[in-house]
Amino acid sequence: MNAESALARVQVVLSHTTHPGNIGAAARAMKTMGLASLSLVNPERFPDAEADARASGALDVLRAATVCSSLDEALAGCVLAAATTARPRDLSPRVVPIREAAKRLLETANTDEVSLVFGTENSGLTSEEVMRCQMVVHIPTSSTYSSLNLACAVQVMCYEMRMALSMAERAEKSIERARLDDVERFFSTLEQTLVEIDFLDPHAPKRLMPRLRRLFTKADVEKEELNILMGILRKLRSHRP
Amino acid sequence: MNAESALARVQVVLSHTTHPGNIGAAARAMKTMGLASLSLVNPERFPDAEADARASGALDVLRAATVCSSLDEALAGCVLAAATTARPRDLSPRVVPIREAAKRLLETANTDEVSLVFGTENSGLTSEEVMRCQMVVHIPTSSTYSSLNLACAVQVMCYEMRMALSMAERAEKSIERARLDDVERFFSTLEQTLVEIDFLDPHAPKRLMPRLRRLFTKADVEKEELNILMGILRKLRSHRP
Repeated sequence: MNAESALARVQVVLSHTTHPGNIGAAARAMKTMGLASLSLVNPERFPDAEADARASGALDVLRAATVCSSLDEALAGCVLAAATTARPRDLSPRVVPIREAAKRLLETANTDEVSLVFGTENSGLTSEEVMRCQMVVHIPTSSTYSSLNLACAVQVMCYEMRMALSMAERAEKSIERARLDDVERFFSTLEQTLVEIDFLDPHAPKRLMPRLRRLFTKADVEKEELNILMGILRKLRSHRP
Repeated sequence: MNAESALARVQVVLSHTTHPGNIGAAARAMKTMGLASLSLVNPERFPDAEADARASGALDVLRAATVCSSLDEALAGCVLAAATTARPRDLSPRVVPIREAAKRLLETANTDEVSLVFGTENSGLTSEEVMRCQMVVHIPTSSTYSSLNLACAVQVMCYEMRMALSMAERAEKSIERARLDDVERFFSTLEQTLVEIDFLDPHAPKRLMPRLRRLFTKADVEKEELNILMGILRKLRSHRP
């Protein structure tokens, strides 16, 4: 995964933004995290001196921004769009926890264009806009005061994209993950062994295997680790009378 | 862990802030994440109409803010302070990755006061200010443009504190973690068993036990899971000829 190219395929879409200062601040927030592609759907004022001032060193992001007349136009060419909303909607697409959403968006951005979609300052995205997206993300907030500034919401989402990237890079460097069919083979050998040593009663298995599955899934088993575990089981069974 | 009381013991300290708008925006960022305690070390202008305007619904945080004449005064009563800096400093306290830092700050805030410390807009914290803190946190940014707006930096840190809180609450609710001495007993029984079945040669142990330790540490073993693992080992050994 290449940092520059994956984040370059993540577009930020601001729909019907009221204050140009927020557009500039959003551009700056994006650039600090390595994002560059900005689409504006019917901004109230743009371009604008206040947007330029708040963009600080991210004027290039502002200058390259595309102005669209509809969300559909902004999302043309994207394969996955995440709507950021403060409150749940009826009939909305699936709500995905923020870190899982960032991970999934980044994985998709490895090959295709994706979008993070933000609504207007006062009321957020309309239900029609939310329905045009494939997932919904809530940024967790205090239950008594959830009024995130638009540029701050953009900052948090772009920050999560960058964190997802550095975790993906770390994972790629150090680990060869076990193949799922090998993991399944391990589970069935483990089950057989537990039956043979009378630890597992096949007629009353209870929740033993699901619990063991959960344990090894939490550990995110690597290829070399799985080789060790299979080696132990093999040795164990060859040793038995 | 109680959400309100833990986050109430997390203080944000802004040192020598130049723009009052950033103070107001920082107050808003704090309140969206459930933080309320703000200390200002020698702000250039405060109180100020621009701070009020940018605070939006977080005027209460601004009104309750303490103005101090030195960082020492702001940190009096705190047991742990984290300096947020964009670049490494000579002789600085230990740099802690951001999520680990949030977790540790929150754990401490369970019983004691902690601080998140932010420097001036243009040049950040001075080396003297950094040295007054017990840890350093960098917010990851693009290598080519790292100029995070002050309020956005406050937003990201406060957001990480809230995420740390919800993870701590989830962990508390669902899991009883295994005691470390029981985990050690498991590892020594496992090692003994592997020697008995000739999988582990005690004279040439290689990296087998460290690798198995790493595997089970990644899984964050729960008490009930450890009981199952110990049960398997016991059964195995009683079964052997």
